[in-house]
Amino acid sequence: MPSSLQNDTFLRACLSQPVPFTPVWLMRQAGRYLPEYRATRARAGSFMGLATNPDFATEVTLQPVDRYALDAAILFSDILTVPDAMGLRLGFAEGEGPRFERPVRDEAAVAKLAVPDMAKLRYVFDAVASIRRALASRLPLIGFSGSPWTLACYMVEGAGSDDYRLVKTMLYARPDLLHRILAVNAEAVALYLNAQIDAGAQAVMIFDSWGGVLADGAFQAFSLAYTERVLRGLKRDADGHRVPHIVFTKGGGPWLEAIGKLGADVVGVDWTVNLGQARPRVGDGIALQGNLDPNVLFAGPAIIRGEVAASLASFHAAPLSTRNGHVFNLGHGISQHTPPEHVSVLVDAVHELSRPYHVLPQA
Amino acid sequence: MPSSLQNDTFLRACLSQPVPFTPVWLMRQAGRYLPEYRATRARAGSFMGLATNPDFATEVTLQPVDRYALDAAILFSDILTVPDAMGLRLGFAEGEGPRFERPVRDEAAVAKLAVPDMAKLRYVFDAVASIRRALASRLPLIGFSGSPWTLACYMVEGAGSDDYRLVKTMLYARPDLLHRILAVNAEAVALYLNAQIDAGAQAVMIFDSWGGVLADGAFQAFSLAYTERVLRGLKRDADGHRVPHIVFTKGGGPWLEAIGKLGADVVGVDWTVNLGQARPRVGDGIALQGNLDPNVLFAGPAIIRGEVAASLASFHAAPLSTRNGHVFNLGHGISQHTPPEHVSVLVDAVHELSRPYHVLPQA
Repeated sequence: MPSSLQNDTFLRACLSQPVPFTPVWLMRQAGRYLPEYRATRARAGSFMGLATNPDFATEVTLQPVDRYALDAAILFSDILTVPDAMGLRLGFAEGEGPRFERPVRDEAAVAKLAVPDMAKLRYVFDAVASIRRALASRLPLIGFSGSPWTLACYMVEGAGSDDYRLVKTMLYARPDLLHRILAVNAEAVALYLNAQIDAGAQAVMIFDSWGGVLADGAFQAFSLAYTERVLRGLKRDADGHRVPHIVFTKGGGPWLEAIGKLGADVVGVDWTVNLGQARPRVGDGIALQGNLDPNVLFAGPAIIRGEVAASLASFHAAPLSTRNGHVFNLGHGISQHTPPEHVSVLVDAVHELSRPYHVLPQA
Repeated sequence: MPSSLQNDTFLRACLSQPVPFTPVWLMRQAGRYLPEYRATRARAGSFMGLATNPDFATEVTLQPVDRYALDAAILFSDILTVPDAMGLRLGFAEGEGPRFERPVRDEAAVAKLAVPDMAKLRYVFDAVASIRRALASRLPLIGFSGSPWTLACYMVEGAGSDDYRLVKTMLYARPDLLHRILAVNAEAVALYLNAQIDAGAQAVMIFDSWGGVLADGAFQAFSLAYTERVLRGLKRDADGHRVPHIVFTKGGGPWLEAIGKLGADVVGVDWTVNLGQARPRVGDGIALQGNLDPNVLFAGPAIIRGEVAASLASFHAAPLSTRNGHVFNLGHGISQHTPPEHVSVLVDAVHELSRPYHVLPQA
């Protein structure tokens, strides 16, 4: 681990090492709920204008860590950059979600699919390097990618979906085509994350945002197996330090035992998961990240503090010999409607209320 | 159990009694994937025109059981009839989902909320009686309601939601208001299901379609507790027979132990749940209903049969002393895009492939 960081609490927690307090960061912490983000976004002209410009990406990545006492920064980017580099042409229509102009739905499109030249994603690696310079040694920077399955959902559907009908039809009717997409994705994601590590990412997270929509059995074969392939391909940093791996499967509660065996250092969980019950399921030595319902942030300060206290108590109720290995986070991205001042309450409550759990003598 | 039924396999399976084959029905089996449904819907002029007319409701309820060898019929209705009767004014804009004109979002609206006069829902009970007459003794009829929590989601949001921000804000910020809504809903749902039983429903199902969006802890307090209240209020039929209770929580996998203790005869599960692992979790003597991914029906006949075989094998892999207590179903409503001929393949495969599990000598 880089020893020069002024605050390495997040990296230590990822590796289940002792920490003085529970570190906290928030999925989508650089985002629309912040007025300063909306101002930068307006200057950039479009979402992709923001995401593809390293200066803008640096600016918005730093905004939440300047405003709050967060323990990590996360690269501002989009999970669909990799399929965009494959030639699917990502677009964001105003008021809608992302959409690919050229979805991958038939044998011919699948046959043409290839691991993209990472040079096409240079804007991402430049952003990582720029953010590292801007952060100096204050905080660690998390890089990320969508999981092979989650990328495949968008690549086949062409956009978000309520029922994942197209990608699941391919899964059941033509599993060979889907396996080919996933194999390409796994190789591309490993290259992509390694290039982020080369550029300075100090932890990497795989967002399996749509893993939870799969049936038992299909999840293991079409999501987990390819996430594992990515993890096996990840490198250490230039100094030979392990770069912590975080895997977050939204709706992954049914499969925590299997996710815990993937080789990740940290398993992210959503709010349906009881942290204390999850710890023995992911296994000793694997950290947990999560899992407050983002909607808690719409309640007042006293309630936010109460929910933080309950979440910390739940984690520390587990019958394990260590109190380490918790990274506080939400169970999903923060809502764009969140009152910014409530985020301070959350972050400060995590730091204050977690200290008693960490000052007791180690067992 | 009514002994006069020509096919009581479904009711026997609900009560974990021996059956010659695994019964099957499909959530939303009367629906848009059937051309005969679309024809009736066109004659009715609107969805509510269809749902509120007992003759039309009878016609569409019978369509799938006339076409396929299904083992139960389910009342054609909507889960939002109860809040509509409370005065929230349900509407269906063309091409959109349901929407309430008068959502319940503040203290004043909550204070005004009351259990509706069941006379306003007479069209539902008339439909139940009419369907029973039309079915004669062929098959049992399932009545249903939304759960108190699921109804509250629509009542507060006013429509479907991606993030349940309004109802969850109420949950965290003003739990007193939400508890009051849920108490009214629980009383109304119990009256509603009892009136369906009086009219002839031979099993009743509670759809907790949105239970799975709740955080651990919140699910128990805001969904489970009120479903339990409904179940405690349910009556037997006019002949003193137990009317099987089915509780289906989409995304309820994390809480199967608690759901199994509710007092229901059958626990419905979605496709993320492994049936064999679920059996010891819900407890001996509680039947399971589910859980095929509806998207399997987009694949060809051989694959559908293979997935049916795998689902049956999964259920029967559980280390329990009984092979009873399985009602085959999908893990969610059938898609409107389903090829109707694939449903025959599914239904026939369940009957054929399940027989070997039921002819072995009982342990």
